[in-house]
Formats: sequence, C-alpha cells, structure tokens
Amino acid sequence: MIAIDWGTTSFRAYRLDATGAIVEARSAPKGILAVSAGGFPSVLQQEVKGWAERPIVMSGMVGSRQGWVEAPYVPCPAGFEEIAAAMREVGEGIWVVPGVSCRDDAGVPDVMRGEETQVLGADRDGLFCLPGTHSKWVEVRGGRIMHFSSAMTGEVYAVLKSHSILGRLMDEGKSDARAFRQGVERSGEAGGLLHHLFGVRTKGLMGELDGAASSSYLSGLLIGHEIRAVRPRSFMVLGEPRLAEFYSEAAAALGCETKRLEATSGTRALFRLGVMLRGKEEA
Amino acid sequence: MIAIDWGTTSFRAYRLDATGAIVEARSAPKGILAVSAGGFPSVLQQEVKGWAERPIVMSGMVGSRQGWVEAPYVPCPAGFEEIAAAMREVGEGIWVVPGVSCRDDAGVPDVMRGEETQVLGADRDGLFCLPGTHSKWVEVRGGRIMHFSSAMTGEVYAVLKSHSILGRLMDEGKSDARAFRQGVERSGEAGGLLHHLFGVRTKGLMGELDGAASSSYLSGLLIGHEIRAVRPRSFMVLGEPRLAEFYSEAAAALGCETKRLEATSGTRALFRLGVMLRGKEEA
Repeated sequence: MIAIDWGTTSFRAYRLDATGAIVEARSAPKGILAVSAGGFPSVLQQEVKGWAERPIVMSGMVGSRQGWVEAPYVPCPAGFEEIAAAMREVGEGIWVVPGVSCRDDAGVPDVMRGEETQVLGADRDGLFCLPGTHSKWVEVRGGRIMHFSSAMTGEVYAVLKSHSILGRLMDEGKSDARAFRQGVERSGEAGGLLHHLFGVRTKGLMGELDGAASSSYLSGLLIGHEIRAVRPRSFMVLGEPRLAEFYSEAAAALGCETKRLEATSGTRALFRLGVMLRGKEEA
Repeated sequence: MIAIDWGTTSFRAYRLDATGAIVEARSAPKGILAVSAGGFPSVLQQEVKGWAERPIVMSGMVGSRQGWVEAPYVPCPAGFEEIAAAMREVGEGIWVVPGVSCRDDAGVPDVMRGEETQVLGADRDGLFCLPGTHSKWVEVRGGRIMHFSSAMTGEVYAVLKSHSILGRLMDEGKSDARAFRQGVERSGEAGGLLHHLFGVRTKGLMGELDGAASSSYLSGLLIGHEIRAVRPRSFMVLGEPRLAEFYSEAAAALGCETKRLEATSGTRALFRLGVMLRGKEEA
C-alpha cells in the first residue's frame, strides 16, 4: 500500500511492503496551499507515478475544507476503529483519513489533522507533545485519543519574529542555549506573556540580549508558557529532532521528564488503517 | 511655549499661551520613522513655521536612539523634578524630554517614552492604564512614577490579525460587543494564552464565531489576559476614546472599576516642564 502525509506546505509519500516497512519515500513542496481546487487527483497521480500499490491512505490537511475533500472530524475519544470508520474514499482505493476534534473544559472546540496518525502509530499510552506551528498535546489511554489541546506557539514565534518590533533586534545565528533557558525561566515569573514579550525588546535595548540570543530567548519564553499551561509531570515528544530537542530542554528546566520518540510513527498508523480497510473489503 | 508629542508614526504640535492653554494645534504623519537621520531640525522648523514661542518641549520617541537625540531614560521613581533635570537641549530653546525606565521584580527592564508626560500631566495618584501598541500600566504616588509595566497587546493583536492564520477568518466589520466579552471571559479559563489563541481559529472553523466577531473575540481575549496579569482593583484609563472604551468594558467584565481620563494631559505636563526650564534659566 501507499501511505501519504499531505499537509499544508508539504507532500510526503511512502511505498510500504506487506509488513508495513518503507520501501521507497518521496516528498515534494506540494502542500495543499500549493494545489488549486480540483487539482488534487492529478498532483497525486504525478507524485506516486510508477507505484501501483493500493490502497492509498492519506492523512493531514488533505482532508480539510481546503483539501481534496472535507473528511469531518471524529470526536474524542478516538482510536483506530473510530478513525477507520470515518475514512472517506475519494477515488478507486484512495482514502482520506479524518481529523479528530474535542472540546476543552470550557466547551471551546479543538481540532487536529495528521497528528492523530502519528500519535496512534506510536502505539503507547500517555501524554504526547507534538511541537510545531500549532503544537498538540495529546492524551492517549487504551490506544484511544481521550483529549488533546493545541497551542499556537510556533506560529506566534514566526509572526513575532517576522512582523513585530521584536524581530528588528534579532539576527540569524546559531541558537543560544543560555538565552533559551532564561526565556523558559522567565515564563514562570509574574506579569503574563504579553508583558514578558515586551521584555524581549527591553532586554535587547538595554544590551542584555544580543540579536542571536533574542530569538532563542523568545523561543524559550513561548515554549515555557506552552508547557507550563499544560502542567505535565512527564510527556513524550514526537516531532522533528531540532524542535523536539528544544521541548526536551525546556521541560528539563521545568523539572519535567520527557522521552523522545521517532516521528515516523504516522506511516505505521496509516499502514494499520490500510490493513483495516482490506479486512473490511474481505469481510 | 510650544509642546510637541513626537512619536513613532505621528507628530503633534501645540502652541500654548502663558497659562498653558492650547491656542493652536497642528499634526502631521511625520513620526520619527518617516524622518531620516539628521532630518529632525528641518522637519521641526517646517511643522512649527510661524510659531515664534520658546521653549519648544518635545516628548516621545524623538528622544530615542532612532530619534533626534538619545535622551537616556530616567529610572523610577520619577516625577517632574527628575525628568526636568534630565532634559536635553538640542537647539536654541529646543528641548527633548527623556523617557522613564524601571525593572520588574525579576529584574527585567521596562521602558516608556511619551507616556510619562501624559501620566504626570493628569496630576493624580493611582494606577493608570495607557492602552496601545505597547500598553503601559503606571503606578503614581506623590506625583511620581513609582513603577510601570508594559504589555505588547496592541502589536500582538495587529500581527496576528494581519499575518497569522487567525486573520484569514476575519473580516472588517463593526466590533461585536458579545464576542469581545466572550474573549475577555475566555482569558480566565485554563490553558493559557497560546492555547486560547488557537481557539479563535477553531471557534471560527466550527461556525461559533463569524468573521467580524472573530476579531472582537481576539481583542477581548488579549485585553483580558493583559488586565488579569496586572490584577488591578481599579484603574484610570488614558487613551484614545475607542480603545479606552474597550479597556473599560473588559475591566467591567472582570469586576474592576475604571475611570476614563482625557488624553490631553501630555500637553499640560510639557507646559509645566517648560515653566520649570524658564525658572532654571532665571535662577
């Protein structure tokens, strides 16, 4: 079969053998934002050219309103059964995996698309953190996603760096571990995030942070606020190595244990969903 | 004398009579960002053409590193005496008022330029809130600024609206008082600001907030977080009417009393500083 992770900015395809092992991988900058409405079938055909395996199982933003087809969110608790039951076939043997939704204690909705396959593919219970543009904190019990919560950390970092006055003092450079840790510590002090953000500027003005240190401090500040709001005792980090490292460091500074997992688990979950599809067809 | 408020994006000049009353006012979009290095004397000359009064007393970002001359910050506690003593003469009878600095309990520096004259000109003790791009919360006792704290609320609102995924769901419209209040209430719930921000998007996705309501909700959310972090019992709001109204409403939703003051107090403070200068010359 073929497993596909089709997100906002990238497309990744994996040809799997009968045991679910990756035989071949391809990727392209063909995220859903780069595909015009109606263009999904031809982009897929082009990107998996020469791969005859079926089914093709796709997760991520391809199942959103802006994607190939909207696959409505499956509410929590959601495991493989609930997700498999809500998959949508968009062509002969071509399936879209739905996202997952929940509501927090105050009734505010939350959603994810793509992260659910990574988490379920890890095949473990516990609290997962998937850092990124919109970080996800996912609680898994008995192989099902019971609850999760998103934080806009990555996007807030990016827009502040590119479009706010904070970015003017920053220059690219290697990350500064000491400044990052200062930012994490700052997140626990009085005044709140909106006050702490202004401090990034004043510390720069006063010569207490140079351009490269500023962006590390901002990163630590935001990640610190994110982790503190969740108040975890321990968690597993699932994400690209550099970002996972930042979260592990921040957690350590907050006295919280972390375990880093490989980010390849999404493919394993898509394989399992593919096997479930085949079982359904045969039944 | 002539009082000038010369900020980042605008220039405002007031010709005052011997009692400090405004005889004539002018303004121009000639904030310091629009003036090239070395261009300040000619912009001033042009903008106050025909006004022969002296001294000219200027406050705001004109005294920053990017302004006419850097007038170093006066540390708190700072009243008229301390500020007058640190004014810098940049030409015959032309003076720049310094900003004020302080450090919070954790030792992180904070700064303001221009707000100090507005606050001192109000001639009252108490807690002032000056909402804006970088809001200021200023504690005045015995006519001196004892402490203050900044929050990046206005700028965070603007960059999220213009540059983040949250802005995509927003359209311009008149503000929605109900959504604003929901945002203020949301600010007190679990999860922290970075989680609450993602909720602006999910509530939009789920059809619980339309495009015009979204921006009011975001505004209420950020202002709610700002006010809660300060934990005031009551405060005075000094700022442009529309913004002051938002802060008063948010404070009311949080059970906090406010009093709105006229934003013209800056001119009164500059007048008093001008009188102090004349006194010094005569002494």
